Amino acid sequence: MKPIQVGLLGIGTVGSGVFNVLQRNQEEIRRRAGRGIEIAMVADLDVERARAIVGSGVQVVQDARAVIANPEIDIVVELIGGYGIAKALVLEAIAAGKHVVTANKALLAVHGTEIFAAASAKGVMVAFEAAVAGGIPIIKALREGLTANRIQWLAGIINGTTNFILSEMRDKGLDFDVVLKEAQRLGYAEADPTFDIEGVDAAHKAAIMSAIAFGIPVQFDKAYVEGITQLAAADIKYAEQLGYRIKLLGITKRTDKGIELRVHPSLVPSKRLIANVEGAMNAVVVQGDAVGSTLYYGKGAGSEPTASAVIADLVDITRLHTVDPLNRVPHLAFQPHTLDQAKDELPVLPMSEVVTSYYLRLRVADQAGVLAQVTGIVANAGISIDAVLQREADEVGGEGSTQTDLIILTHDTREGTMNDAIAQMQQLPTVLAPITRIRKEELN
Amino acid sequence: MKPIQVGLLGIGTVGSGVFNVLQRNQEEIRRRAGRGIEIAMVADLDVERARAIVGSGVQVVQDARAVIANPEIDIVVELIGGYGIAKALVLEAIAAGKHVVTANKALLAVHGTEIFAAASAKGVMVAFEAAVAGGIPIIKALREGLTANRIQWLAGIINGTTNFILSEMRDKGLDFDVVLKEAQRLGYAEADPTFDIEGVDAAHKAAIMSAIAFGIPVQFDKAYVEGITQLAAADIKYAEQLGYRIKLLGITKRTDKGIELRVHPSLVPSKRLIANVEGAMNAVVVQGDAVGSTLYYGKGAGSEPTASAVIADLVDITRLHTVDPLNRVPHLAFQPHTLDQAKDELPVLPMSEVVTSYYLRLRVADQAGVLAQVTGIVANAGISIDAVLQREADEVGGEGSTQTDLIILTHDTREGTMNDAIAQMQQLPTVLAPITRIRKEELN
Repeated sequence: MKPIQVGLLGIGTVGSGVFNVLQRNQEEIRRRAGRGIEIAMVADLDVERARAIVGSGVQVVQDARAVIANPEIDIVVELIGGYGIAKALVLEAIAAGKHVVTANKALLAVHGTEIFAAASAKGVMVAFEAAVAGGIPIIKALREGLTANRIQWLAGIINGTTNFILSEMRDKGLDFDVVLKEAQRLGYAEADPTFDIEGVDAAHKAAIMSAIAFGIPVQFDKAYVEGITQLAAADIKYAEQLGYRIKLLGITKRTDKGIELRVHPSLVPSKRLIANVEGAMNAVVVQGDAVGSTLYYGKGAGSEPTASAVIADLVDITRLHTVDPLNRVPHLAFQPHTLDQAKDELPVLPMSEVVTSYYLRLRVADQAGVLAQVTGIVANAGISIDAVLQREADEVGGEGSTQTDLIILTHDTREGTMNDAIAQMQQLPTVLAPITRIRKEELN
Repeated sequence: MKPIQVGLLGIGTVGSGVFNVLQRNQEEIRRRAGRGIEIAMVADLDVERARAIVGSGVQVVQDARAVIANPEIDIVVELIGGYGIAKALVLEAIAAGKHVVTANKALLAVHGTEIFAAASAKGVMVAFEAAVAGGIPIIKALREGLTANRIQWLAGIINGTTNFILSEMRDKGLDFDVVLKEAQRLGYAEADPTFDIEGVDAAHKAAIMSAIAFGIPVQFDKAYVEGITQLAAADIKYAEQLGYRIKLLGITKRTDKGIELRVHPSLVPSKRLIANVEGAMNAVVVQGDAVGSTLYYGKGAGSEPTASAVIADLVDITRLHTVDPLNRVPHLAFQPHTLDQAKDELPVLPMSEVVTSYYLRLRVADQAGVLAQVTGIVANAGISIDAVLQREADEVGGEGSTQTDLIILTHDTREGTMNDAIAQMQQLPTVLAPITRIRKEELN
């Protein structure tokens, strides 16, 4: 049988990985898929570089639309990134009846609903294993492997840059700014690291997984997003003393009121496997009602790990492209007509309605009665305290007074309630600096 | 569309889990699969108990063959276990044109080749996600998620009973016999624990994963199998001091000469994620050439975790049963006609040809020259030493002489070479007891 014909839009880091792995393992992949998979055409603005990668056997063009217009091409792989031209090209490829594979989480998080609807109407597949957690087959696990389960929650380290930075901060006791510069020097962080360090990239991925887990449309616009730029080395140290590590988690959870969808730094018990995921690695914990807790770990980025996911999608499409579309795995795991209804039943909750536990660090005057004042506010708000850590006084203020850090761990509390309590504590004259609040997840 | 009709053979722990999860999550599963999945008929020797589980809406019979003969049944789920009647029933179900789902690792490890050939000839699917690592979707990850990769090796904690025992031995410093009794009392070990503690169950699963990873037939008969019954608490303690934990690993690896397939206790660096998998949990690390190292973690047994995997298979078959068999995922990930050829190219190696590193514990007389004698033998054999740990003398022998433990860690060595060196060391008059040898895996 003739190999399935693939057109690549963009051949940078991931695209060259796809080309190289398909070349190197072509025998193995054919033995698995029962049919060859061939990159027949590549579009890239830098035609020279593209030619240098693919050699003379593959047609290289500058205009992506020439790939989409080519009737020989069965599958278009979009590796351009971003929401602009990538969106137009993906929709044009779908309109031309091509199946699409993409690694573009930003595009799917923001325009997924429109793209999946277009694909369903046209009867083509849009596959995106590479969009979340790189080479880890987490999309397949959620859509197929755990399909028997009512998913209760999932939580993931889904941004390698921030996990690298947090690992370094903990290992070396350094502050965020110092480690970020080091990460940029080593290539673990981009020149403009905003999307990573502000949590936006993680929120794109969390929004996609949330839709798959709970059968709702992708709703990135409803996600709460908080990055790691405000984290102090002191908090990492105190957390460690209390038996926790701080990780940037993407979390989505089903509650009776609706869906939680949030990205923020979280204290995680050190003994949890995910707390021990270090460096640029990714991991996702999924809690299902039948299976219990499962974890998936691997490289979340990089040329060949991401290519591994792209090619898995190519093989899936090669198998399924002749199948009645109704028998394929739905894009978001659930049949499309059931998504909007679920959205009404399971709205994404505002952050004030989220229930979690908290780590608070207060810079306070080291004098009698402070602890009673602070814990009094907490008690009056109906918030239950799990642990208190009071540091030795360590700093002499201007008039001979001393200061100290007061750390409080709470049990589960509604975020709105906690916001009010923090506002009250902040008003105390004995509280000398803005209160640090980090959420805590037991993940059990 | 009419729900797909499922017949259960055996409704014990896993069967009742399948029934309960399908009932509880039927709405969710229908939204995903696009079609209902219904248990229409159950066969069990204990008809009373079966009726008590499934109620009056489901036909219960004593004779499994009545399920197979029922033309309404689309999929037969075999949950009887063992190689005897289960084998006959699976082959009869295939002959009757039924798709089969099974959790029976022993059956597939020993008779997989025959069963998969029969299924291919008949054009039906045999799915077995539940046979390896319970609820963890590791079969799907290997067959589909990592399909782009040339798998280099995989290593798994794939027997919960032995991992529970090893975790308890380490935590409490107790010996094997004591912990086994405790595990039996708690229900973590069976009354006859032989298959678990001797490594046979892990080897069944490793043989299945080896076939899927490397595209060879299932060859349990070629596996090297060593259990945990000989492990002493002292070895666990010494390993810990050297930075390792001892786990019972199922390992399969591709080398230039052929395939390694082995189950034995292994020292694993404590910092590896898999070394921190405790209690009855399972985890598998897979190393692919493109994706690098990935890990999959979860419950490896139990009613609903195993049911989660069985139902995932039911959904897959529901989707794919109308598809041309050539477009389905092959049973062992590779197209069947390519397996036997690969077997010739990649034979399973005898244990003497395996290359790994070693932990040796020698009970020696505490006198001058012993270390030189022992390390001399090692050096003459061309074996490179990684570390030596010499304990303080701790025991007074009959004639006033003292004894001590000498621990040696080696670098990679051929097992045959190590066997010869151990035999020579054992001859030394200063070596006072049988030498303990545990293999060491860096897993990097």
